[in-house]
Order: sequence, then structure tokens, then C-alpha cells
Amino acid sequence: MRQLPRPGPRNLITDVAGLMVGHADDSAAGTGVTTLVCEGFYNASVDVRGGGPGVRETETLAAENLVGRAHAVVLSGGSVFGLAAADGVVAALSARGVGLHLKPGSPAIPIVPAAVLHDLANPGDKAWGLDPPYRRLGMASLDAAGPQFALGSAGAGLGAMAGLIKGGVGSASLDMGGGLVAGALIVANPVGSVMTPDGRAFWAWPFEIDGEFGGGRPDPAVGAIDPVPDDGRLASLGRLQPGAATTIGVVATTADLTTAECKRLAMMAHDGLARAVRPAHMPFDGDTLFAIATGACSIGHGDDRAVRLAAIGSAAADCTARAIARGVHEALKG
Amino acid sequence: MRQLPRPGPRNLITDVAGLMVGHADDSAAGTGVTTLVCEGFYNASVDVRGGGPGVRETETLAAENLVGRAHAVVLSGGSVFGLAAADGVVAALSARGVGLHLKPGSPAIPIVPAAVLHDLANPGDKAWGLDPPYRRLGMASLDAAGPQFALGSAGAGLGAMAGLIKGGVGSASLDMGGGLVAGALIVANPVGSVMTPDGRAFWAWPFEIDGEFGGGRPDPAVGAIDPVPDDGRLASLGRLQPGAATTIGVVATTADLTTAECKRLAMMAHDGLARAVRPAHMPFDGDTLFAIATGACSIGHGDDRAVRLAAIGSAAADCTARAIARGVHEALKG
Repeated sequence: MRQLPRPGPRNLITDVAGLMVGHADDSAAGTGVTTLVCEGFYNASVDVRGGGPGVRETETLAAENLVGRAHAVVLSGGSVFGLAAADGVVAALSARGVGLHLKPGSPAIPIVPAAVLHDLANPGDKAWGLDPPYRRLGMASLDAAGPQFALGSAGAGLGAMAGLIKGGVGSASLDMGGGLVAGALIVANPVGSVMTPDGRAFWAWPFEIDGEFGGGRPDPAVGAIDPVPDDGRLASLGRLQPGAATTIGVVATTADLTTAECKRLAMMAHDGLARAVRPAHMPFDGDTLFAIATGACSIGHGDDRAVRLAAIGSAAADCTARAIARGVHEALKG
Repeated sequence: MRQLPRPGPRNLITDVAGLMVGHADDSAAGTGVTTLVCEGFYNASVDVRGGGPGVRETETLAAENLVGRAHAVVLSGGSVFGLAAADGVVAALSARGVGLHLKPGSPAIPIVPAAVLHDLANPGDKAWGLDPPYRRLGMASLDAAGPQFALGSAGAGLGAMAGLIKGGVGSASLDMGGGLVAGALIVANPVGSVMTPDGRAFWAWPFEIDGEFGGGRPDPAVGAIDPVPDDGRLASLGRLQPGAATTIGVVATTADLTTAECKRLAMMAHDGLARAVRPAHMPFDGDTLFAIATGACSIGHGDDRAVRLAAIGSAAADCTARAIARGVHEALKG
């Protein structure tokens, strides 16, 4: 029997070598930014599936367009204001000389896709007038980037809600052997519920490894036939408008995927979101997942390349589900 | 406490009034066709999420294009050959006078989107040379259409496989009250597995109503960390090429959704597929879901229209998961 894959040593997306993650948050405002920084300029794609997304530089990652790569990915609270976090990261990376060098003497041009979630209605002082904190928080998250980072109520997850309970930032990894590693970094702030209807388990429970999110298991006698679960926010109509809520994140792998293959990875990763959050991908969610391939591990060029891609996609989906549950679990503990 | 929604009287997609379903199959060839016929010309959309799809008339359903409606939807076995099933349905509907009437005296123009699954490698005599059976089967499926229809090994599900076990055609419905009904009609032929790793339950078990697919429940001690489950077909590399496998279907509602809202319905329905099949949406799957809105039930025009759409989407996702499990359950029984 084949050895089952295991999480990497950190059980974080940074088990994919070449990636670092940093948080910065503003506890008074109850919001924050999480930035994933690439050591190289890696192939990347994105799949936007929510009905109320807030993103930038996603078209830059379309397989038919020129670039299809990223220097960093920014996940931010703050809805439309949070998009400015990427401004801070762009300026700071360029000042370090990181970016495309198109002409000697002109600034380096970093490619920094970003997605935001809606935490404006959650506790915290949002009276920032003409000076929202996100540009500054973006720079600070970049400075904080490293291989270890906090889970739960930190960074872009600081003001997050998951249905009616605290949301947060989560991560998980899976070492598939032979240098092939997959990981996910997710900020869970969905309208839907991450818990089974009995409240005893995360929807993601079948994918849990070593009790990484508490080991809760559902009561098999309790079904889920209510399409509008009480512990989601869909039942409380008043709060909902497009842009509320949202789950955003990044999945990554060491595989040498093309930009188009990264798109398939992001698409399959959304299945992990679907398994961990119910309902998901609603008109109000801005559910967006990026996918990054560092390219360190060759998956070959024969007929079975697509089979390997599918296995990595399945691992990325599982990591996504686990990261969502871990993020909420850690937020509830904290 | 709110009354939980229940299946409609048939627990079939035909609980959405105005829809009928017919099967036709060729037992020697081990393949078949399932056609959903609309009493009216209903708003419709589609979401293609598999990496190896086979479809027709999907662009016709794009919200920005002219038509955005359908007279029927054809689901067929036979991979590329199965697309001809829609030719048969188009010709037969037009002969009945069903279709767009653009000019007096010219033929009625029926809009018949279609999707196919790959059952060519499954048992059955496929040596049809220049005369594949699908055009004829398409016509026969239309003639057979009614409010009641078989589940399991019938129509487009006749030659289906679900991972390494028999696949089939399934359906389910949910009556949300006040005339609002959702339903799904799915042909389950995925590469991935529909069963939990212990083999005791369908992945869709949390959504089961009244033991409609056998009542099996998983062992909570058994996780699912292998991203390449042994009972999926991903582990047996030899059989896989783009176009192999695929889950295709239709979700429907009585709601008065626009074409664009039907798109959101189809998108959310894919979450039901993700919850019922693991892995799903792989490069080899042609996973495609249509969405149809008969329009009989108004869901209003206020701020909470999107909330109602989200609830219908969640119901459609649950019906999709239940239909997949029912299809396989009935095929295994038969």
C-alpha cells in the first residue's frame, strides 16, 4: 500500500520552498493584511468564483496574456479600501529592486495580484476618512514576511467572520513525496457556515490530519437539508449586500506548472472551499483563489502530466479545506 | 423554528413544473441519451468546470448574448459522437413546431444545448462506423419524455462509471415553499470517487433525505487524506485521457431568474458536485452543469432578491449532490 502523504514540517503554505508570509494588522480598526511573498517570479493564476469579488491584477494572470506570473499576492481586509494594500507592497518591493526590469533606470515593476474581503461591518473603528490604513499595512506585512506566521485572528483574518462565528487566516500543506509539495493560505470570512449543522465538527473534517483543527466529528444522524443554515449569515438578511463576506486565498505547489495549469489548480482548489463552507460562492461572497507554482519540482511531460496535475489539484483542494477549518479553529481558540 | 424544506412529490427534477425527462438507450452499445424538455422557452445558463468538456450551444446561453434560453437540454453518452443526440432533438422539436419562429414558412429553430460524457471505454459494442446511434437515441429520448423517469442505469447513465463502480443518472428535488422548487438531473460518470474512503457512505451523505440513497454513514475515524483515492480512477493511469469520465447535468428552479442569475445557479450547483465527488473538476472531467429557470415563481425585486438567489443556489447544490448519489445508488441496485 502506498504511503499516505503527510503535511510538511510547518503544515503551512511556506512548506512550498520559496514562499514567505507576513501579517500586519490594526487592532483598533479590526482589520489587517496578509501578504505572500515569492522568492522568485513564479507562474500564477487565479479563479474568481464569488459574486461580489474585489481584486486587482487578475487579468495579468490570464493564461493568454503576457505576464502570467507574480512576485507576491496580497490578501486584505477592508473591501475596496484594502486594494491599496497592494500599492504598499508594490512600492516596497520596487524599492528593493524586485520586479520586472523593462528599462535601465526606470523603477522595477512588481506584479502583485490582490483580493480583498469585506470586514467593514465587523467591530473596529473604520472612521479613517481620507487615510485608510491598508497601504501602510501592506508595507508592514511585507516586512513581517517569513517562513513562520500566525494563524487565526491575524493579518487579513483579524476582523474576519465565518458565518456567525469568528473567522481567521489558516494554512495547511501536504508533502506528496519526491519534492512535490502543495499548500494553501486562506482567509476565511464566508457568509456560509464552516460547521456541520450539529455544531460538532468542521465541514472539512474528513480531510483533517492529526487533529489539526480540533478533531471534532459530526453526528451522522444529523443531516443538512436546510439550504439556509442557521449558523450561516444568509438567514439574517439585513447584513447582506454584495461585497459582504468572502473567502480569499492562495494555493501553491513546488510543481513546474504553467500559468494555464495554475488556473486548473485554482479551479480545483475551489472544490476544497465548497467542501469546507456551505453555502459558498454566493452572490455576496467574493470567493477568489490564486494558484502559484514555484517550478522546483518537475512533473514530467508525458501523457500522465495531466494525471499529476489532477493529483496536485486534489491535494490543493484538501489543503484549502483544511486551511479554512484551521483558520477558524485558531481564531476561536485565541 | 422554520419548517425544513422537503423533496417534491416525485423527488425528481420534474417537480419543477414545466419540465419533462426522457431516456433512450442502446443496451448492445452500452450507451444512451437523456433529454430534458421544457414546456416553455425558459431562461438558461451553463457553467463548464471540467478540463475535458464536450458541449454545444453553450455560448448561446451566455448572458451577454442574444438568446439565453433553451427549449431542451440533452445529456448524452458517446463523447464527441453523443453531440449528435442534440441534432435528433433539434430536428424532432422543429418538426413539432417548437422553436424560434423567425420567418413565416421557415423551420422553427429549437435551442437545444447539450453536454456529453465519455463512456466509449466502457463495456458495449461501439463499432458503429459511420452510423453512431446518438441522433436516433436523441429523438427516442424526446418521445419518451414525461414527468416520471428511471434512475440508475438508464439513458445517458447506461454506460456510466463512478470511479471504479457503476455510475448512473440521478435526480432529486427540494420544495422550498410558496411555489419555489429546485431540482437536479445529473449523470454521474466521474473519474473521482463518490464514496467516502471507508466505502460505507456516499460523500453526499450529509444532504441525504429519508434514506434516498441507502442511508450509509461514514466512519468518523476514517479520514480522507489521500488526494488520489484508491476507488477513484485517477490511481489507474492507463485509462485516463482528456474526455474520459465527466459528470453532466441540469439544475432547475421555478424561480423567475434571469439568464445571468441562472449562471450563478449553475456555479453554485458545482459545489454540490464538489461535495459528492472527490476529486472533481479534473483535467479529465468534462464537468458541465446547465441551469434552467421556468419563471413561474417570482422572487421579488428588492434588496433580498440576491439572498433568495443564494438560497436557491444552495438548494440546487444540495440537489446536485443528492442526485449524484441517487444515480449511483440506483445503478448499483439495478
